Amino acid sequence: LKDLKQVTVLGMGLLGGSLSLAVQRSFKSVRVIGYSHRATTRKKAASLGVASEIADDIKDSVKGADIVILCTPIYTFEETFKEIGRQLKAGCIVTDVGSTKQLVHRWAAKRLPKAVHYVGSHPIAGSEQRGVEFSRDDLLEQAACIVTKTKTTNAKAARNLKDFWSMLGCFVQEMSPAEHDRIFAQISHLPHIVAASLVNANSDELLKFSGKGFRDTSRIASGPVNVWSDILLSNSANCVKGIDKMMAELDKVKKALEKDSRADVEKLLERARNKREAMIKYKLRKKELL
Amino acid sequence: LKDLKQVTVLGMGLLGGSLSLAVQRSFKSVRVIGYSHRATTRKKAASLGVASEIADDIKDSVKGADIVILCTPIYTFEETFKEIGRQLKAGCIVTDVGSTKQLVHRWAAKRLPKAVHYVGSHPIAGSEQRGVEFSRDDLLEQAACIVTKTKTTNAKAARNLKDFWSMLGCFVQEMSPAEHDRIFAQISHLPHIVAASLVNANSDELLKFSGKGFRDTSRIASGPVNVWSDILLSNSANCVKGIDKMMAELDKVKKALEKDSRADVEKLLERARNKREAMIKYKLRKKELL
Repeated sequence: LKDLKQVTVLGMGLLGGSLSLAVQRSFKSVRVIGYSHRATTRKKAASLGVASEIADDIKDSVKGADIVILCTPIYTFEETFKEIGRQLKAGCIVTDVGSTKQLVHRWAAKRLPKAVHYVGSHPIAGSEQRGVEFSRDDLLEQAACIVTKTKTTNAKAARNLKDFWSMLGCFVQEMSPAEHDRIFAQISHLPHIVAASLVNANSDELLKFSGKGFRDTSRIASGPVNVWSDILLSNSANCVKGIDKMMAELDKVKKALEKDSRADVEKLLERARNKREAMIKYKLRKKELL
Repeated sequence: LKDLKQVTVLGMGLLGGSLSLAVQRSFKSVRVIGYSHRATTRKKAASLGVASEIADDIKDSVKGADIVILCTPIYTFEETFKEIGRQLKAGCIVTDVGSTKQLVHRWAAKRLPKAVHYVGSHPIAGSEQRGVEFSRDDLLEQAACIVTKTKTTNAKAARNLKDFWSMLGCFVQEMSPAEHDRIFAQISHLPHIVAASLVNANSDELLKFSGKGFRDTSRIASGPVNVWSDILLSNSANCVKGIDKMMAELDKVKKALEKDSRADVEKLLERARNKREAMIKYKLRKKELL
């Protein structure tokens, strides 16, 4: 990592912009090249100075890069791999910040040259805000970052990438793409499905009576539709399992209410409350971003 | 309402304490008597000065009151009605801040003397914080407050009670207890069931990977178990209908994912996003507490 000279960030949204700023801050002598396929975004990114340089051409942007990071919606990755493959120097680490990892590993194996090393990344950071204008150099600080590798992943590249995220202030954890997708289907993709379904279960007339509780429970349903469609579709089998688990839990509450059983209702609410309090305590103890 | 001289608040939790403070602030010449069945709470409430006076005996506390407001969990109300009924002066308005209304109207009709007037109230305000020590005189400001009446409710008492909540800064809306319970099962009780079920659908190990989205979506699952058990059990038929609707929406997402249909997934997420944005805009336009 001490030889790191150039990092290219493809996609200048909130995360791409924030990541570019964070790299500039944490690696003083590294050049950060940013790219966006939209001219207006490139202009905004350039005037905000989020990267050392904004490239007008994606092929130019990745030339000479030691690390290339894809920060666009997941289903753009396969095409991008095809587009940039031949421009990458041998030994280049290619990664992404997508929220699902199995499909991306498959695309990388199929579309990237053997001489470059794909390793998956998933920094757990973000916001409802969208766009490069909301970029912050501390968005990744104290965020968890999952790095995914398979049996064929280059071990040195994975080690270097883990160091890279650590230098940006992340808590890094390594796992397989399969394990990653199983875990995040439950803890991240299912909540999104639940929030959207809760809104859809209510008419516009009923929504006028919503309070603070409803607003929070449904907040993530306001997230970008294209990004989340990509996430759910690229992890659909795990998401379906998550929905089944959720329905099973809802059914327990339904049965407890139909039986008019105070003991059962209290047990379910108590269990949820205790589990959530333990989760909050764990996060506070780890000083991890919530 | 210009003759208002004494308001008694039974139950000194966050809401009872905040309500007592708000009455003191908005009605300068009114005496506010507070009561709690726990001596430690009475002591705290007295030292914090949330009410003009803290009574040690519930029967004494309601004597001479023009308005009595129950701020304890719902299933304590029937017993309280029996206990205070004979102490109330003729024409006294009895109300409560419970989150379900049909059962309370039935108890009031059965347990309160004919000479006093029960009208239901449900101020949509609160917080995860519990206890009189978190009381704030502005908790009810710009909050919606539903006032419920039936065909047998005294019309003048209902009008006076509506004026009372308005004076405290609430946006008052009147409806029948049946309508109230149907609406709030969907928009308030269902989200609680959903939040608790979402936590219970995840193991403790998985919860360690939770991010900001999960924290918000599950926040209300940390609410007080006794209060929420009362709410769900006292509105169980409507809650069961809400669960069925929620399951139907989850099933739509499941089917869209099983079909691998981007169009269907996007349609569902888009619909939720648009509905939620319309809801937020409505609240901002009304300047209503979110």
